[in-house]
Amino acid sequence: MRHLYHFWVCPFSRKVRIVLGEKGLEFELTFEKYWERREDFLALNPAGQVPVMVEDGGLALSESTAISEYLDETYPDRPLIGFSAEDRAETRRLVAWFDLKFYQEVTINLVDEKLLKRFMGMGEPDSSAMRAGRQNIGHHLDYIGYLADSRTWLAGEDFGLADISAAAHLSCLDYLGDMPWDDYGPARDWYARVKSRPSFRALLADRIPGLPPPSHYDDLDF
Amino acid sequence: MRHLYHFWVCPFSRKVRIVLGEKGLEFELTFEKYWERREDFLALNPAGQVPVMVEDGGLALSESTAISEYLDETYPDRPLIGFSAEDRAETRRLVAWFDLKFYQEVTINLVDEKLLKRFMGMGEPDSSAMRAGRQNIGHHLDYIGYLADSRTWLAGEDFGLADISAAAHLSCLDYLGDMPWDDYGPARDWYARVKSRPSFRALLADRIPGLPPPSHYDDLDF
Repeated sequence: MRHLYHFWVCPFSRKVRIVLGEKGLEFELTFEKYWERREDFLALNPAGQVPVMVEDGGLALSESTAISEYLDETYPDRPLIGFSAEDRAETRRLVAWFDLKFYQEVTINLVDEKLLKRFMGMGEPDSSAMRAGRQNIGHHLDYIGYLADSRTWLAGEDFGLADISAAAHLSCLDYLGDMPWDDYGPARDWYARVKSRPSFRALLADRIPGLPPPSHYDDLDF
Repeated sequence: MRHLYHFWVCPFSRKVRIVLGEKGLEFELTFEKYWERREDFLALNPAGQVPVMVEDGGLALSESTAISEYLDETYPDRPLIGFSAEDRAETRRLVAWFDLKFYQEVTINLVDEKLLKRFMGMGEPDSSAMRAGRQNIGHHLDYIGYLADSRTWLAGEDFGLADISAAAHLSCLDYLGDMPWDDYGPARDWYARVKSRPSFRALLADRIPGLPPPSHYDDLDF
């Protein structure tokens, strides 16, 4: 059975879980405390990060975009990157937008401060970082709303990896109660459409011991 | 004519220049002070970063990996990502290694501190950041040496985007005189092979006004 080493509120792990769900592929999840740098885990991924996917034959793949591209090439039935070279460039531009820019400006400041530090025993969250994260989120939600209003999905007419990457980040923030949904209607409408996809169900069932999500987290009419 | 908006010692701009060179494609370079957030430039790339490539017909592409993948798909004669899905996953894993991990641990601490701050008028370099960058570089050069010794090129038997991405970062550090070549023979041997490729020549001819590189910068037998 295919195996995915993950961490619950890691947007990159969630991205691969959604891709696997969209492709209808079965897999087993293993929670990896990657910050403990377990030797057997470092042998799978010398970068020491989740997600790592191990195929049935033992092939170990790491880095969420490399894994997603691999799955899209290996199971091409429902392409998630796009049909033309131009479409794919737009998908990849937006995946990088969320995985680099949104991650640095928002996710790190909220998820890492509030949750990862607690797991890693690194002390209290830095309130100035959290304030920066909350300030930065607005223009990203405006951009999501703008894209979703001018196209069907973020990168164009088809649901794909740009939507998956963006939703993976937002779902982590939503779990922590950090999404200002009321002020961003178009982004919320787009997220509601993503949330209702079967591939998203497992994420909405996630529960971190001792840290329940807000009640709207798994509500499709939030 | 194809147009590339770039900054001289931006590893991501250099990566696309090398890809264009490997594909034998002509292009015009425009130096963009992207930190000034020129309105016409933001219309091309709302992320406000270089590189941005504008095709003859006006199609604007941004984000160095999205551009590189686009060029590799559109001009497939000499594939730079790899031949099989597994090879491509390995190339993409390593491209992310250099563009995310190496960038955060080394490039930002040295290139941004020593050079970008000066261009942007942001004051003196932070010496603790520079110290961290110099400390971090060693294990990356060991990793490059290990990969280059156990394979022909970094991701496998063929020269490709992993080599290009790694060399783009190292070439920026080399311009600033920050490469401890003497202590890392195998990485140096690999870099010498990359440096001798025709696609690298334009980078070695780069000169930033008022900031000449060390004499070994464009020497193929450094």
